[in-house]
Amino acid sequence: MELLEGKNIVGYSDSFSVTKCMHGFNPATGETLEGDFHVASEEEIEQALDLAQKAAPAYAALPPKRRAAFLRQIAEEILALEDHLIERASAESGLPNGRFVGERGRTVGQLRLFADWIENGSWVEASIDFANPERKPMPKVDIRKMLEAVGPVVVFTASNFPLAFSTAGGDTAAALAAGCPVIVKAHESHLGTNELVARAIRDAAKKTDMPEGVFASLVGEGHELGKKLVLDSRVQSVAFTGSLRGGKALYDLAAGRKNPIPVFSEMGSVNPMLLLPSALDRPDMANVVANSVTLGEGQFCTNPGLLLTIDSDASKKFQQQLASAFEQKSGSTMLNAGIRSNYHTMVEKAADQVGVEITGKGKGNEQSKNSSVPYCATASGKAFLQNPQLHEEVFGPFTMTIVCADKRELDEVIATLQGQLTCSIWGDEDELATFAHSANLLKSKSGRIVFNNVPTGVEVCHSMHHGGPFPATTDARFTSVGMDAIKRFARPVCYQNWPASQLPDALKDGNPLGICRREDGEYVSPK
Amino acid sequence: MELLEGKNIVGYSDSFSVTKCMHGFNPATGETLEGDFHVASEEEIEQALDLAQKAAPAYAALPPKRRAAFLRQIAEEILALEDHLIERASAESGLPNGRFVGERGRTVGQLRLFADWIENGSWVEASIDFANPERKPMPKVDIRKMLEAVGPVVVFTASNFPLAFSTAGGDTAAALAAGCPVIVKAHESHLGTNELVARAIRDAAKKTDMPEGVFASLVGEGHELGKKLVLDSRVQSVAFTGSLRGGKALYDLAAGRKNPIPVFSEMGSVNPMLLLPSALDRPDMANVVANSVTLGEGQFCTNPGLLLTIDSDASKKFQQQLASAFEQKSGSTMLNAGIRSNYHTMVEKAADQVGVEITGKGKGNEQSKNSSVPYCATASGKAFLQNPQLHEEVFGPFTMTIVCADKRELDEVIATLQGQLTCSIWGDEDELATFAHSANLLKSKSGRIVFNNVPTGVEVCHSMHHGGPFPATTDARFTSVGMDAIKRFARPVCYQNWPASQLPDALKDGNPLGICRREDGEYVSPK
Repeated sequence: MELLEGKNIVGYSDSFSVTKCMHGFNPATGETLEGDFHVASEEEIEQALDLAQKAAPAYAALPPKRRAAFLRQIAEEILALEDHLIERASAESGLPNGRFVGERGRTVGQLRLFADWIENGSWVEASIDFANPERKPMPKVDIRKMLEAVGPVVVFTASNFPLAFSTAGGDTAAALAAGCPVIVKAHESHLGTNELVARAIRDAAKKTDMPEGVFASLVGEGHELGKKLVLDSRVQSVAFTGSLRGGKALYDLAAGRKNPIPVFSEMGSVNPMLLLPSALDRPDMANVVANSVTLGEGQFCTNPGLLLTIDSDASKKFQQQLASAFEQKSGSTMLNAGIRSNYHTMVEKAADQVGVEITGKGKGNEQSKNSSVPYCATASGKAFLQNPQLHEEVFGPFTMTIVCADKRELDEVIATLQGQLTCSIWGDEDELATFAHSANLLKSKSGRIVFNNVPTGVEVCHSMHHGGPFPATTDARFTSVGMDAIKRFARPVCYQNWPASQLPDALKDGNPLGICRREDGEYVSPK
Repeated sequence: MELLEGKNIVGYSDSFSVTKCMHGFNPATGETLEGDFHVASEEEIEQALDLAQKAAPAYAALPPKRRAAFLRQIAEEILALEDHLIERASAESGLPNGRFVGERGRTVGQLRLFADWIENGSWVEASIDFANPERKPMPKVDIRKMLEAVGPVVVFTASNFPLAFSTAGGDTAAALAAGCPVIVKAHESHLGTNELVARAIRDAAKKTDMPEGVFASLVGEGHELGKKLVLDSRVQSVAFTGSLRGGKALYDLAAGRKNPIPVFSEMGSVNPMLLLPSALDRPDMANVVANSVTLGEGQFCTNPGLLLTIDSDASKKFQQQLASAFEQKSGSTMLNAGIRSNYHTMVEKAADQVGVEITGKGKGNEQSKNSSVPYCATASGKAFLQNPQLHEEVFGPFTMTIVCADKRELDEVIATLQGQLTCSIWGDEDELATFAHSANLLKSKSGRIVFNNVPTGVEVCHSMHHGGPFPATTDARFTSVGMDAIKRFARPVCYQNWPASQLPDALKDGNPLGICRREDGEYVSPK
């Protein structure tokens, strides 16, 4: 395995400017890791944008199976990195090797699922209204439409998934599948992992003869690079996974452009879990909750940071069990020093609020320079209703139980919740019917509503919706996980009276691709 | 027929505040029309928002056939207004009665098509991934999703379609079909038409037992009412048809909310038509263009305001023919004094630009106080490339021919175009292949691309896309005409491991609604 080169990936040529360097750190030990990563120069940024714009029409026009071959080759190149990738990701993130074996599987799996999906072809939502020259009073013209690629996409990668939501993660895979060139802003917390994967993508692009400019990876300090990319008129769409502050800032920048563009920011949430009376009686409930909250050091956007209960003997007993479960938990290294410091600040801030009591505390890992300590806390429904601070996400292994006086207060609490990626309900089926109003309120706040499951673990599939009302995301209509993530990077194009020979295959008479289409308003799926 | 009452329509009770009044005018004669229209009071605005929020969950939960019955009843109530509606719309707009017979047909037709479409049910894009407890290494959970209503929608109505894009127009029909309550801001240019139609909707809601608050119509002066509605946290989505200035202002307001919401502004464009050499030889070409440009006094968002040609003997001859065709055209009353005055200001501004020549001028109508005068103009490709003013829309019966030196300059001109609702190409099939690059460039700028048709006349059908890149609209991913307009007012909701008994019908096992769904990624359409 060759050493890390520290180069930005721009097109297929190897030249790069000599600029200031950034470095990777091991958050567990604090040591500086191999690699001098050059901040992208003005020329490299301009070249990446120019090549992306030039590549866009040619790349979009490729037959889907060519793009699918590219996606599958990326998967192969990533697998060919073998343990080198796993070890670098682990060293940069503080997460164990085993986690990255799983995350690599997810990353490679996503790429292949998108390859399959664009080969299937039905994602373009083809629709045809055939001409009817006999119609009175006006003849009906031939009108057809389908989804087509929007052009260059900028991807801001997530700290908490250095593979699956990063350089070749869901956003990149979805945009490349849709037919859009991608410019990745490398995450400063995993610069080495980024370089390895970015090179894999570039190599796959070369091997499958993709137009130069289909992919770029740029390193930058602070917000300068990101701002420049989002404001550039050649960029047509932006995907981001991270904090509310970061995601909202990009949204504001893009909305303020002369020509506004969509920004798909997935910003996380507190993912409330409503524990109905029968759930509080479950002997495993406290452990199920504690395991979900502390999984991956609580660094998941679907982490259940809020538990909703109604006061009872069972709720008191549950709280004791939860406190015991947390006391047996050991924290470990968080993703970086900033996230660790922010976590403990937010825990302290929560603990300082009137009516909040820390009920359970796990252990830290003294071997690590950046260990988390798991905490659980409690507050009354009344305190929650009065204090917006209690609604804020604490990113890390923390959860707070809100004890409501009765069902009515519970519904008041739910009504004040902000938009969420997920809301979960635990109980039995009869209770769900009894609490139908609460369930509907929770649904109105969330993108995914879960019954007797923890929200962590987001299945990559057709029916997944990983989105939700603001501030969970900036656009509740789109998902960042699953096959429909591709729709973020496409828009409908309508062809009126277009000559048959010039129509895209998806819109041709006789349905040569054999896809699901609407024809005069009826769905046909010949497969 | 009872007289106009001048009341805002808020819920089912008849009380209203006594406030300042607005009046309707006949733009042809300047006379004040019947009706004292009360500006909505603070209490009425608050009541409309409160009732809409309360009605939202109950209305969304109604079976689709109940909502369909409501939409069909609105159509009946509108038809029951008979000539009273036609005459008022004509008096307020200056457009002839015959136009409103057609527009009423379109309005009633849209309502019925949406009723059919929600009864069909496939619009919810249901998708199911079934559980697989045997999957290794992790069992697969049951995940299902579908589109559901977003909540209260505010509709800003269009001046140029007092029926089809107004109180019961495409936006209102689509939002009500999706399951969203609607608050209409009445257009100040057709307050009487608005009242008649708003009462029809209220009466239909009562007769079909819809929850109170499903519809409101409010009258307001200036921007105050609109601003208040868009900024209210209970409002979940906004639809607007009108000017770039108005539509962008609403977009900015909504993007600046604490919780940003989508704004679907359809703001029009210049709708370029590329006339390839063979088209310039068509003996009817100049008349076809002149007829499309002057239709409805040019007051259509799809009006072809820009013609692109390559310099040749044929292009010179075409210009002469176009000038002659315009000289035979007679203008008539425009929608209101503001639009008429703006039209003539914009024509003068265009004529004042370096290199622009007015080549043809029609007649005005001396009987009317607000008549347009049709104009055609010309400029070189070079002048167009150098002067952004020549890219601006002139709303009215005006078009400008851009004469490019050669194919290369033509492509440069196309590359500088802003986003468009439509671009059209006239020529033969071989030429379209020869000009494939120009056609692709035009496609990248537009929502609908048309061959050998004028862009005016927007078919209401499944495959229509009436949208386009900014500044044609604020969201190129959605259409404001056709069945897919419903998607603007819905978002996906995902159900994980949800009990079968509590699932919406669209997601139940066995597909009881018989709709088109995705099941484990395969489309099934049992109908």
